[in-house]
Amino acid sequence: MTYEKGPDHSRRKERSRQAILSAARALVMEEAYEKVTVEAIAARAGVGKQTIYRRWPSKSAIVFAALLALSEDADGQSVTLPDTGDLATDLKLVMRATAHEFSDPPFDKLIRALNTEIANDPALAAEYREKLAQPLDEAKKTRLRSAQRAGQLDPEADLDLVLEVLYAPLFQRWLHRSGPLTPAYADSLVDVTLRAFGP
Amino acid sequence: MTYEKGPDHSRRKERSRQAILSAARALVMEEAYEKVTVEAIAARAGVGKQTIYRRWPSKSAIVFAALLALSEDADGQSVTLPDTGDLATDLKLVMRATAHEFSDPPFDKLIRALNTEIANDPALAAEYREKLAQPLDEAKKTRLRSAQRAGQLDPEADLDLVLEVLYAPLFQRWLHRSGPLTPAYADSLVDVTLRAFGP
Repeated sequence: MTYEKGPDHSRRKERSRQAILSAARALVMEEAYEKVTVEAIAARAGVGKQTIYRRWPSKSAIVFAALLALSEDADGQSVTLPDTGDLATDLKLVMRATAHEFSDPPFDKLIRALNTEIANDPALAAEYREKLAQPLDEAKKTRLRSAQRAGQLDPEADLDLVLEVLYAPLFQRWLHRSGPLTPAYADSLVDVTLRAFGP
Repeated sequence: MTYEKGPDHSRRKERSRQAILSAARALVMEEAYEKVTVEAIAARAGVGKQTIYRRWPSKSAIVFAALLALSEDADGQSVTLPDTGDLATDLKLVMRATAHEFSDPPFDKLIRALNTEIANDPALAAEYREKLAQPLDEAKKTRLRSAQRAGQLDPEADLDLVLEVLYAPLFQRWLHRSGPLTPAYADSLVDVTLRAFGP
């Protein structure tokens, strides 16, 4: 007897993938990260442990995939930043959204757990950069290049450095819980960055 | 029979404290952090496990104390930053030293291990802020206030924000291994910060 791997098979596979990623997200948000096990994720998703291990080698790989899936658009389009023609307005919108997202307790737990793994696992750090950080950075740089053409940003500015100055203070404040992530703080990072890299 | 707790006792206690902290530093630099145990630290230091537990409640507390001891001056003086009268020169000296320190493999391992604990332990994060980050920040702010008086920095600048813009990009680049920590990079962070917060 052979199984035909047709549309039904693909749909089942995708349903099981989604169930595993949802289960991983839910468990990481409920429990201390180190207490979450692949067994518990499998049980919550209603699949066998082997179904998980066929696709992901470790708990950190599943949690990373779960985070990655959150940033996939429903239509598979890549992320773009708003472009109203006014860089300060657009960046403040994005930075306020980022500050709000990092202040959200369930998201906080997920990204904090992943950060721990990334800080201690160079291979996962490389995968994080390639699959999540770099595509997001490219979307941001597209917006910055548009601002350079519009004369709102130094045409010689190093865009990697611009993004670091914009985001790293918020990231560090969040990671070390050293201050509040308010909309006013998000705005001040945009103002500082535009003063540093103005035309 | 009673023991007199005189100078000899104090000296012995201090010697045992130093032996424990050195052992903790050595082990964290040699092994994966999660494999370092309080037992191994005690064995390396030549003390009983109870001697450690009388002073520190956990492995992360010992490792934190070990890091803290590194920043103690021999004469117990608090840290100060150089003040030649030229803010850019002084900050570049400090930032180059910081970049060099974070690029040093044994220090990298110690501070990476501690960062993992801090990110996941709000109580340790608070202790880190109080005992290490805030005294260092105060030393840096003293230098920045001197620059404000000298007309080299906006007198209205939020000094916490200045320090974040100066240090957070380097911290994030180090944590995520997203770029090299060169002297030129250290200098560029100083230049960017002074453009953003110039008078």
